[in-house]
Amino acid sequence: MGAGLVGSVLAANLARKGHEVHVYEKRPDIRKAGNMGGRSINLALSERGWKALRLIGIEDQIRKEAIPMYGRMIHDEKGKLTFQPYGVGDQAIYSVSRGGLNARLIEFAEKLGVDFHFENACVSLDLREGIIELEKTKLSAKTVTFGADGAFSRIRLGMMKQDRFDYSQEYLRHAYKELSIPPDEQGGWRIEKNALHIWPRHSFMLIALPNADGSFTCTLFAPFEGENSFAKLRTEEEVTRWFQKFFPDAIALMPTLIEDFFSNPTSSLHTVRCQPWNKGPVALIGDAAHAVVPFYGQGMNAGFEDVTVLDELMEAHRGDWPELLHAYAVSRKPNADAIADLAIKNFMEMRDRVADERFLYRKKLERMLHEKYPDEYIPVYTLVTFTHTPYAEAQKMGKLQDRFFGGRIESLFQNAEISDELLERLLKEWKQYLREEA
Amino acid sequence: MGAGLVGSVLAANLARKGHEVHVYEKRPDIRKAGNMGGRSINLALSERGWKALRLIGIEDQIRKEAIPMYGRMIHDEKGKLTFQPYGVGDQAIYSVSRGGLNARLIEFAEKLGVDFHFENACVSLDLREGIIELEKTKLSAKTVTFGADGAFSRIRLGMMKQDRFDYSQEYLRHAYKELSIPPDEQGGWRIEKNALHIWPRHSFMLIALPNADGSFTCTLFAPFEGENSFAKLRTEEEVTRWFQKFFPDAIALMPTLIEDFFSNPTSSLHTVRCQPWNKGPVALIGDAAHAVVPFYGQGMNAGFEDVTVLDELMEAHRGDWPELLHAYAVSRKPNADAIADLAIKNFMEMRDRVADERFLYRKKLERMLHEKYPDEYIPVYTLVTFTHTPYAEAQKMGKLQDRFFGGRIESLFQNAEISDELLERLLKEWKQYLREEA
Repeated sequence: MGAGLVGSVLAANLARKGHEVHVYEKRPDIRKAGNMGGRSINLALSERGWKALRLIGIEDQIRKEAIPMYGRMIHDEKGKLTFQPYGVGDQAIYSVSRGGLNARLIEFAEKLGVDFHFENACVSLDLREGIIELEKTKLSAKTVTFGADGAFSRIRLGMMKQDRFDYSQEYLRHAYKELSIPPDEQGGWRIEKNALHIWPRHSFMLIALPNADGSFTCTLFAPFEGENSFAKLRTEEEVTRWFQKFFPDAIALMPTLIEDFFSNPTSSLHTVRCQPWNKGPVALIGDAAHAVVPFYGQGMNAGFEDVTVLDELMEAHRGDWPELLHAYAVSRKPNADAIADLAIKNFMEMRDRVADERFLYRKKLERMLHEKYPDEYIPVYTLVTFTHTPYAEAQKMGKLQDRFFGGRIESLFQNAEISDELLERLLKEWKQYLREEA
Repeated sequence: MGAGLVGSVLAANLARKGHEVHVYEKRPDIRKAGNMGGRSINLALSERGWKALRLIGIEDQIRKEAIPMYGRMIHDEKGKLTFQPYGVGDQAIYSVSRGGLNARLIEFAEKLGVDFHFENACVSLDLREGIIELEKTKLSAKTVTFGADGAFSRIRLGMMKQDRFDYSQEYLRHAYKELSIPPDEQGGWRIEKNALHIWPRHSFMLIALPNADGSFTCTLFAPFEGENSFAKLRTEEEVTRWFQKFFPDAIALMPTLIEDFFSNPTSSLHTVRCQPWNKGPVALIGDAAHAVVPFYGQGMNAGFEDVTVLDELMEAHRGDWPELLHAYAVSRKPNADAIADLAIKNFMEMRDRVADERFLYRKKLERMLHEKYPDEYIPVYTLVTFTHTPYAEAQKMGKLQDRFFGGRIESLFQNAEISDELLERLLKEWKQYLREEA
């Protein structure tokens, strides 16, 4: 159920392995809906996502269209810029258009033999009767079925009717709204192309990701209510004045700000957790199982990783689908919980701390430690973004790193220069700390 | 919506204040269904519950039928008994039959002019259209509407479809099953009548509450799976052997054990949290807003307290229902969260610690402190059960008490006798501790 990003990748992989695959999707075919070019939501593909694209054989094609972002470009209130690399060397996360990627994936899956059924929404799942009701047809829930139908999944709703189904949906007090920066007159990028731009302002922030056509898709995150909230931005004048005050360098690049602001919706952000993810031959995957807030750039990547983990388990559970789905669900659940927590934590970090001197100093120290000792010190962001370390392990390591630096950052901050000796000493202390904690 | 305990008390109170009240209930009229005598679920009424019954004017009538339980009677594996008073003096919680109480409340509300509509279930609430669909009719959701329709509330389901509705349902790994101890041949009670009996066995336990007819309603709590779980009790022989091993004094009093065990369901236990509880003129109340596990004996009491809090707020918000419902929801939510947490904590305590020497010693110290200094030291159980202190405040106080005794219990435990001097010194330290924490 669902021909979104995760549903399409999953379907492609199952078809590649010789299964007969049907995908039912509520929306019209994205390839025909004129959603492929121009402004659009974009997402950051990172290592876990690439692994799934590599698995199904579409990595190279997508790489060609993706724009590498090597770090965060921080814009302060005066327009001053600071660049914070995400990793070392050519490590980058990649800006891709959601609609464009989805269309490519559907196209690709279709060539592998997947049968897509558009405009045929899942209405309900009745596990007791073993029936999935669609708008236009009924299916047996005794067939292997994946609910890849997103954060508001109908398949999950059907599973919720079972006894002992744990479920939570939790909203942030923040909303988001999409805005845009158009290309320059030559069709180029008006600000640094290879970066994720952030205008952090504590309780609110603006971000911008590059598109292939020279434009940027911007997203404003701010509280629904209270000071500096969407509720305070009711008139054109209020919006203009507020942007001029807080985002002076950005507003200069946003000729359609007012139009965008009042025509685009103010949308909510929430986290979904549930368990168990499977019941017999029916399982949840992607946002249907674990919708997260977007602040670690891992929503799609976590969903794609579901597909690769499932793929790895298929060998061990040949043919026994309920067993396989159970193993998949049990192994993924703690990792989904971890990335949900990490995403909320990163929200605070992006808003509040990317402009904090001590925080920046710590980031620099960690990056230099990692460059000098690439296998012995790996920052949590790197673990999440550039490795396949399970999210729960990355989260655990991140907590150790927070505690390690928490007690040291004040005295470390006194060092103007980060010397080789300092790094050497820090690594020794870090290894000692890990031994003590073990 | 809902003619359960909370719905009936709320309806009675609104009618008493001159409102026209209609109650729609899924089930048949409990007064006609033959549910009033004999074995039945029973509940423990405590001070918060009594306050609501007093408010509507039915307290005296219910007192007559309720059985006071002055403490816990602990049964060890050899049948040895220990009595732990719940409070001081004649403080008690009261065993009442759920069905019997519900019937009385409906009867009483009807006399006050409430119009009950049985076998007319709420099917759905559509907030966008402002319509409540019932089995047999449609209502306007623009009329003041309370969802008192329990832990699986349809009104709540309708509210969940709104944006920004936080919701969680979380199941324990434990299940429960009702069993029974019949009256003796003279129609009397086979074990102490005025106590709540507990057979604590760490990961599982049996409890028994007295009924007016001489019987006890027992409840077995045990994990669904694993060691000493329901999954291991599949045959008559397994059940008999297990009860003989762990509850030898109880099984001797349970002639219908095997029949009860295999005819009564194995049921799950869960906690529901949500917010906001209100949207315009529609609000949730009782289990629909905050279903809790039964281990503090506060589920019904918390629901009844919703009614008294609402009543107190009515003065301040005369006629402005959305404002009133908002104030009610905001003021009750933290207290509902607190009792949900306290109930889960008490579950651990009842299973694991009521047989622990240090725990019993602490309980004794706290009781003696409270007896000697009734206003200066009030144990959390007393705050929850015998006062109207908001649950969130009681929970906070309980945490302070845990921390205060946590650091002292080992050395205190060395005192064979609890002297007046010891209590005096402890009170002094407690007051000092509170000052430091403030």
